[in-house]
Amino acid sequence: MRFSLIPRETKFFDMFVEDARNVLGAARLLEQFFRNYDDRERLASQLRDAEHAGDQMSHEIGRKLESTFVTPFDREDIHALISRLDDIIDLIEEVADTCILYNIDAPTPPAIQQAEIIVRQCEQLAQGLERLRHFKGVETFWIEIHRLENEGDRIARQAVAELFKQGQDPMDVIKWKDVYALLEEAIDSAEDAANVIERIVVKHA
Amino acid sequence: MRFSLIPRETKFFDMFVEDARNVLGAARLLEQFFRNYDDRERLASQLRDAEHAGDQMSHEIGRKLESTFVTPFDREDIHALISRLDDIIDLIEEVADTCILYNIDAPTPPAIQQAEIIVRQCEQLAQGLERLRHFKGVETFWIEIHRLENEGDRIARQAVAELFKQGQDPMDVIKWKDVYALLEEAIDSAEDAANVIERIVVKHA
Amino acid sequence: MRFSLIPRETKFFDMFVEDARNVLGAARLLEQFFRNYDDRERLASQLRDAEHAGDQMSHEIGRKLESTFVTPFDREDIHALISRLDDIIDLIEEVADTCILYNIDAPTPPAIQQAEIIVRQCEQLAQGLERLRHFKGVETFWIEIHRLENEGDRIARQAVAELFKQGQDPMDVIKWKDVYALLEEAIDSAEDAANVIERIVVKHA
Repeated sequence: MRFSLIPRETKFFDMFVEDARNVLGAARLLEQFFRNYDDRERLASQLRDAEHAGDQMSHEIGRKLESTFVTPFDREDIHALISRLDDIIDLIEEVADTCILYNIDAPTPPAIQQAEIIVRQCEQLAQGLERLRHFKGVETFWIEIHRLENEGDRIARQAVAELFKQGQDPMDVIKWKDVYALLEEAIDSAEDAANVIERIVVKHA
Repeated sequence: MRFSLIPRETKFFDMFVEDARNVLGAARLLEQFFRNYDDRERLASQLRDAEHAGDQMSHEIGRKLESTFVTPFDREDIHALISRLDDIIDLIEEVADTCILYNIDAPTPPAIQQAEIIVRQCEQLAQGLERLRHFKGVETFWIEIHRLENEGDRIARQAVAELFKQGQDPMDVIKWKDVYALLEEAIDSAEDAANVIERIVVKHA
Repeated sequence: MRFSLIPRETKFFDMFVEDARNVLGAARLLEQFFRNYDDRERLASQLRDAEHAGDQMSHEIGRKLESTFVTPFDREDIHALISRLDDIIDLIEEVADTCILYNIDAPTPPAIQQAEIIVRQCEQLAQGLERLRHFKGVETFWIEIHRLENEGDRIARQAVAELFKQGQDPMDVIKWKDVYALLEEAIDSAEDAANVIERIVVKHA
């Protein structure tokens, strides 16, 4: 009985890693989006594809969850993990989408820095999830993701403070306030995902 | 025993239909509000009345739910359904309220189109809920509500993109960005209500 | 057995009162922040300290909750109560923080009035929680908190309407719309906390 269950359990871990790698791919597309802003339409379209692929992975994990009697950990934890990964990719897509919708003609340095932070957080998440099957060695990833969130917070605060200095164009303030907020939400959602992973590890410690 | 329960169960369906018709009435008031904008104060006041009436219906259904041992479906589904209908009417009222509060002097064509979409979605919801007692024939309503949501999304995106074209007044951007967002939220909440109805039907299929 | 439990139960009530007093202290700091706006940096820093102290109290109550087998009331109610108190202090801190971040150079009269309302609501919450151990005499506090919320709502509406009158600077509208919204959220969260307290009392009536 035990042996027949292991393959099914292992499948879940593989699926999480695949999902996290897709989120990492999207994060890298967002960084490219800002770095090659003339090519933004094409990169935004690739981001939409990555988001759809993520949705399909979530549904597949959901279906597997319903048909599997024994899972490696609590159903609600699996559900929370998928949802948080989903949130990250949704927010990443929304950042790119909003830049185009708001007719923003060039990215700002803090926006690029925030995108880099999201990439580095997603690298940590992907590596952390690969280690999750052993239920250990996840702490270093978790700590680094929180450190990156703090760095992102500092960048966002400085960027917003800059918007409210004398002589800014109100239209730029309206646009960038929203984009910085979305970038910060994406960074926070990566931290939320890390918190779910940590909770799972603590339960199995 | 069985016979004595049937009337009570039937009562729930009647109450949902009554609630959905009240939401539909509010949606029609919102369309009128935009079409007869000079009469906006009076129509906004009628909308507040419809919202209060909806609140009372929700409480009545809630009370009935607590005192009824056997219900036609899960308590949490009933609760979700009432909450989603509540959300729609709250958002409809907030749209009208915000237009007055923000001192908007005339509605835009996309705002009127979005209000029409909400009316059509609420017509589908009311009809879908009338069919709910048979737990079938709900699919067509559900599909149409999603189609309308897509149409609403397209209208909202175009309207927001228009705001960020060259030469717009920042004050108009601040005002309309909020109003379009509220209209889109109302449209999304109608879709959420449709999703709850679909979930209920699937459970009883 | 019964006797040994009473002290532990009593401890919870003491902790709630301590937590509520900390929130009240933060509310008073916010009023001072607006009234002595030249001293805003120092007062914002004190607010951050109060928020950290509140976090520690929440964690302590959480730990106590996990280690206590019998509690004076439902675990989820205790959790809801702590969370709502947490929300109030978080929002109070965010108001001060946003004023500094947005480079606001002077508070407006409605902002000061809203801060006063938060103080008065928190006074009611602290007094209500002191009475909670007897599970009665809480109604008058609850009624007053709702009355204050209505008053706050009226002030906020008037303040926002003022922003959208002719001839306002778009930058001021962007700034104050956010700050008034945060103040209103803080007032609403005090009402939410009062609702949790009422729910607890009703259960034990």
